[in-house]
Amino acid sequence: MIVSRIEAPRDEAISTLTDRLLAGLPAEAVVTDPGVTTSYAHDMASFCPAGAPAVVVLPRTVEQVQHVMRTATELRVPVVPQGARSGLSGGANATDGCIVLSLTRMDRILEISPVDRIAVVEPGVVNATLSRAVEEHGLYYPPDPSSWEMCTIGGNIGTASGGLCCVKYGVTAEYVLGLDVVLADGRLLSTGRRTAKGVAGYDLTRLFVGSEGSLGIVVRAVLALRPKPPQQLVMVAEFASAGAACDAVCRIMEGGHVPSLLELMDRTTVKAVNALTHMGLPESTEALLLAAFDTPHPAADLAAVGALCEAAGATQVVPADDPAESELLLQARRMSLPALEAVTGTTMIDDVCVPRSQLGAMLEGTERIAEKYGLTIGVCAHAGDGNTHPVVCFDAGDPDESRRARESFDEIMALGLELGGTITGEHGVGVLKKEWLAREIGPVGLEMQRAVKQVFDPLGILNPGKLF
Amino acid sequence: MIVSRIEAPRDEAISTLTDRLLAGLPAEAVVTDPGVTTSYAHDMASFCPAGAPAVVVLPRTVEQVQHVMRTATELRVPVVPQGARSGLSGGANATDGCIVLSLTRMDRILEISPVDRIAVVEPGVVNATLSRAVEEHGLYYPPDPSSWEMCTIGGNIGTASGGLCCVKYGVTAEYVLGLDVVLADGRLLSTGRRTAKGVAGYDLTRLFVGSEGSLGIVVRAVLALRPKPPQQLVMVAEFASAGAACDAVCRIMEGGHVPSLLELMDRTTVKAVNALTHMGLPESTEALLLAAFDTPHPAADLAAVGALCEAAGATQVVPADDPAESELLLQARRMSLPALEAVTGTTMIDDVCVPRSQLGAMLEGTERIAEKYGLTIGVCAHAGDGNTHPVVCFDAGDPDESRRARESFDEIMALGLELGGTITGEHGVGVLKKEWLAREIGPVGLEMQRAVKQVFDPLGILNPGKLF
Repeated sequence: MIVSRIEAPRDEAISTLTDRLLAGLPAEAVVTDPGVTTSYAHDMASFCPAGAPAVVVLPRTVEQVQHVMRTATELRVPVVPQGARSGLSGGANATDGCIVLSLTRMDRILEISPVDRIAVVEPGVVNATLSRAVEEHGLYYPPDPSSWEMCTIGGNIGTASGGLCCVKYGVTAEYVLGLDVVLADGRLLSTGRRTAKGVAGYDLTRLFVGSEGSLGIVVRAVLALRPKPPQQLVMVAEFASAGAACDAVCRIMEGGHVPSLLELMDRTTVKAVNALTHMGLPESTEALLLAAFDTPHPAADLAAVGALCEAAGATQVVPADDPAESELLLQARRMSLPALEAVTGTTMIDDVCVPRSQLGAMLEGTERIAEKYGLTIGVCAHAGDGNTHPVVCFDAGDPDESRRARESFDEIMALGLELGGTITGEHGVGVLKKEWLAREIGPVGLEMQRAVKQVFDPLGILNPGKLF
Repeated sequence: MIVSRIEAPRDEAISTLTDRLLAGLPAEAVVTDPGVTTSYAHDMASFCPAGAPAVVVLPRTVEQVQHVMRTATELRVPVVPQGARSGLSGGANATDGCIVLSLTRMDRILEISPVDRIAVVEPGVVNATLSRAVEEHGLYYPPDPSSWEMCTIGGNIGTASGGLCCVKYGVTAEYVLGLDVVLADGRLLSTGRRTAKGVAGYDLTRLFVGSEGSLGIVVRAVLALRPKPPQQLVMVAEFASAGAACDAVCRIMEGGHVPSLLELMDRTTVKAVNALTHMGLPESTEALLLAAFDTPHPAADLAAVGALCEAAGATQVVPADDPAESELLLQARRMSLPALEAVTGTTMIDDVCVPRSQLGAMLEGTERIAEKYGLTIGVCAHAGDGNTHPVVCFDAGDPDESRRARESFDEIMALGLELGGTITGEHGVGVLKKEWLAREIGPVGLEMQRAVKQVFDPLGILNPGKLF
């Protein structure tokens, strides 16, 4: 060994593991100090158990990742890949004795091509960093999860992240053209393409997108870009009931409009945002709808959509006067989760997506569930997509309230499935929803998904205990 | 048996097969007359061997398809799924003794929802039928292969078909939200969703899209729709060299424009179209570029793009005066393949897609290859996507010319790969390009793809001999 280690005596297996890892990684890339490794145990989900990592590795090259995976295969050690750990389902939580494989140091943007409208990036690039870099070339990388200032492209690919843009621009999956993936045994697989189209063989690219690190380690991605659209203009509409707001959403989409954003905040959320930020949003409303257009003439589009809101019963419709006012309205929406978190200290954020024609039923049902369990549940929603985020607020120190929170959370998912929806629109399954995945996809689906997992990870070392 | 059959004595195995099939299918859905079954042997590809089907089945229900697959599994008989057989890679060609499973009678549109912007269809629905049906609801199903008046949605899903719309709207894959698939053993698998977003488990939907019937039988699809855009307005630009036309394409895309169509026809193609249709396209040109916009103000967009064409050296730029003239120009583009076919009687249509920055190099190289082999090779291209269709014209009765045609076809694919492209942008691999698939995706890719195939089709009965 080329490095001397002055450390407390460790378990022999861990010692062998770190020795092997250090044979292909610099010392600074292999962290065993429990004070540090423990800080890598969790993502941002509540109620998800996490184990103690044996070691955290922070590679900078594809070859180093290959070395990690070869070592893990040889020693049969589980590997938990991580980006910024901003996930909300426990998908990046450590398991006991695992290698945490943090991709955050592989953070180079390798290429931006305005003619081909692609970017080639390493997985650790932060979403906002990429978004700003392509903007300088007149380009646009749409996916914009709320955590965009910290979350990584690798993490976004792992969960097929969404954001506010999806109603017009779709989710991360739509922007991944090709991948380089280190397989469980350390071999390198290239999938997909850097061309606009391509149908050569099975679409393994999309199989990796949303697979939560359970099939391989993404070490490079070719991403599709779009031309930068005009700055969006935002409008806010107030409604006397959540149902009326949902009706407006249906009228807008049925009317053939293509807003760049169509978001809903219920009364609970509005009050929480006011309490935290003193923004002075209208508290007498039962639901706020935010709509935006990034078209050449957004004011005209907003006027048409405003009229539909009024037809659906909006009590007030206020278009923003300028981009600054638009940004302020979006800020209110982005503060929803932290604001709801501040209500009782702890939240569970659900992610049920229903056909948008069922949005009203979903909101009504969630209100019923909140009453039944005597809990505060605020709902913000990517309404145009039918993607709701019911946020269950509770006191984690109160066992009974915690139990009710967990039960209401599950009941919300059951309602989503009943309405023809899915348990997760953009946050992923992780640890949090794995029993629910089985319920959604059924026994045949589960069997086929497990069999696919087996192909890519025959030893079961890649992010075990997630998804299934 | 409930039906009496008065037929020539058949091979015992075939007799057993048809008996079993008839136990779950009406007599009219099971065809064994060789005069008829032979007509189901081929799709529209040249140079692709096809065998003699044992039987053609034409089910009308999911249960009947399940019965076919259970029977095939039990008797270990290969199954070749077919739509309209308009494919260009031999992907629907029969193998000796197979069951041809024609999905053309499962042709119901089950649902169109303007609020949810989805359609639910059976696989045998013809593309144009669906397109027209959704149009009545103010909706738009973009994928538009040249064969759209005959090809089926099931076939489109099998090859992830493209068309003229892709530069703005993407390929079939982008529009498939969820599938019902009958597996090789007859079980029914539901994948995906009917919501706008969803990340519950691995994306098996996209695995089936483009899998050319080798993983399962699609019996129902949930398709995403868009609002119907304004009618597009077309412009034609003439260039003194193909290189200048490709330069214009790069400038247009780099300039952030989003045309609804950006097509190229080289001189050979223009002359062939004139010879067939007497359309009077300008023969002095080396390349024609067609651009279109379906924006609210297409004339303004065309003017901007026209200026870029002139900057790239266009000798003439002529916007269409009205939709009728636009349609005429598109007609010329759509006639390209039949026109080139008329040149020598037989064609091989290649489908190489390169990064659009390499389009000029691709066209130049193709010209060199045509010269080297002493052949006529016309190129039409979905230029905005970098997706070229070099059409090798030859006399199939001349063995030497046929050999040269095949060699030039391969050399075009080699060039495409060299330029960072793919061997197939939208036509699929089928029989025609299976050696080339291995070359494109490499040994690790091939191994993983084969392993995925093994999961879904352990007995190898689903469209054997295709892709790999």
